[in-house]
Amino acid sequence: MTYCVGVLVEDGLLMIADTRTNAGLDNISTYRKLHMFNEADERVMMLASAGNLSMTQSVVSMLHEGVDDEETEGPPPRLRDAPTMFKAAQLVGRAIRRVREIEKAGFEAANLRMEVSFLFGGQIGTEPMRLFMIYSAGNFIECSRDAPFLQIGEHKYGKPILDRAVTFETDLYDALKVGLVSMDSTMRSNLGVGLPIDIAVLRRDRLDLEVNYRIEAGESYFHDLRERWSAALRAAHRAIPRPPYGPPR
Amino acid sequence: MTYCVGVLVEDGLLMIADTRTNAGLDNISTYRKLHMFNEADERVMMLASAGNLSMTQSVVSMLHEGVDDEETEGPPPRLRDAPTMFKAAQLVGRAIRRVREIEKAGFEAANLRMEVSFLFGGQIGTEPMRLFMIYSAGNFIECSRDAPFLQIGEHKYGKPILDRAVTFETDLYDALKVGLVSMDSTMRSNLGVGLPIDIAVLRRDRLDLEVNYRIEAGESYFHDLRERWSAALRAAHRAIPRPPYGPPR
Repeated sequence: MTYCVGVLVEDGLLMIADTRTNAGLDNISTYRKLHMFNEADERVMMLASAGNLSMTQSVVSMLHEGVDDEETEGPPPRLRDAPTMFKAAQLVGRAIRRVREIEKAGFEAANLRMEVSFLFGGQIGTEPMRLFMIYSAGNFIECSRDAPFLQIGEHKYGKPILDRAVTFETDLYDALKVGLVSMDSTMRSNLGVGLPIDIAVLRRDRLDLEVNYRIEAGESYFHDLRERWSAALRAAHRAIPRPPYGPPR
Repeated sequence: MTYCVGVLVEDGLLMIADTRTNAGLDNISTYRKLHMFNEADERVMMLASAGNLSMTQSVVSMLHEGVDDEETEGPPPRLRDAPTMFKAAQLVGRAIRRVREIEKAGFEAANLRMEVSFLFGGQIGTEPMRLFMIYSAGNFIECSRDAPFLQIGEHKYGKPILDRAVTFETDLYDALKVGLVSMDSTMRSNLGVGLPIDIAVLRRDRLDLEVNYRIEAGESYFHDLRERWSAALRAAHRAIPRPPYGPPR
């Protein structure tokens, strides 16, 4: 399993991705799922992946080397050459479809599901900063001011806190904090999501990552956040009065 | 959608079930999903249902009237006659299979899924109090001291708080409180789960329900619980220090 969340607020963009992959319960590994496509002072793009690892890795490689599908005339387009984030998201979609074409027969023969999804966000030059979720079919949606976050993978455990705590006006590092709480809730309830966690933060109109960091097991801030959150939840439900429905105590 | 949770702690058993059903997004109704099979001073059994409403209603009716499957010799057995909770859970499973047999051809012709699940718990006489989750195939699992709660329906949003806050030693009404917080989290993140909520509480070795109550929209305790929980979560994530990963503020 996987859990990745992307948040686009007024101040900028962040992504958080776990690194656990599994092929069956007895084959668990650590793979990076948060990928960067950066050209200093020109563009910063981040791509987080969920789903079949062979497919998502091929999509990432193809976006680096060029997408050689039938729409292509001239050299296969690379993500680093896309003029806008919208066209870049379209290219991610094309790469997904191209990988599907290539792998389809083999997957069908092995009765494997071709499920992948991506979060894709960033900024190119003076174009607007944008955040997309791209589906297995290569189509995509964009996050909005009303719903400033997107999730892929095992998203339900960690959604309630995001629903409550993140708006477009939320401070960038507060949003990162809430995203880490969301990741913590997911990790506690689903063993398929685990440390280390990759995080990236991009401030709006600064074409250079402000944070590009891996949180390893035992890292002090995240450990402290988990402890504080647990303690606060315990205190929170203890502070709520006893339900009045039963007989007097 | 549906969300139901059952908790079996040292002091007793509780169930919480929402009442929202939908056939498509434009056909939303309120149906009771928490059903009682009580004989005063002799047995209290509660059954919460998720999945296809026509199937779950037929299962409940059949458990009242008797399960007329091919295993039956003599009068079709009713839930009120089951000598132990284990045999009662088996009978629920038989009722599910019998309804599947009856409805299978029609469901297949209409390309409908025969998905149902139940929480079933209670106590008969001096037999142990037990809580089961019964699947579409009629098989079932029982909750344990290590994992004293079971959920059906849209269970992921509300699982983190249960994972953190409920153990076998938790006070019965504290468990009810945490169950209501779990229901609140689910309702906030999934519109398919909604008020009113039915709750039932049975103290161990008292063969009479201590609570059998419907929480309607606007009910003051639950409204207050939701407000307090929201405020406490806001305070909790605000109290966590800012992540140290970015540049100094």
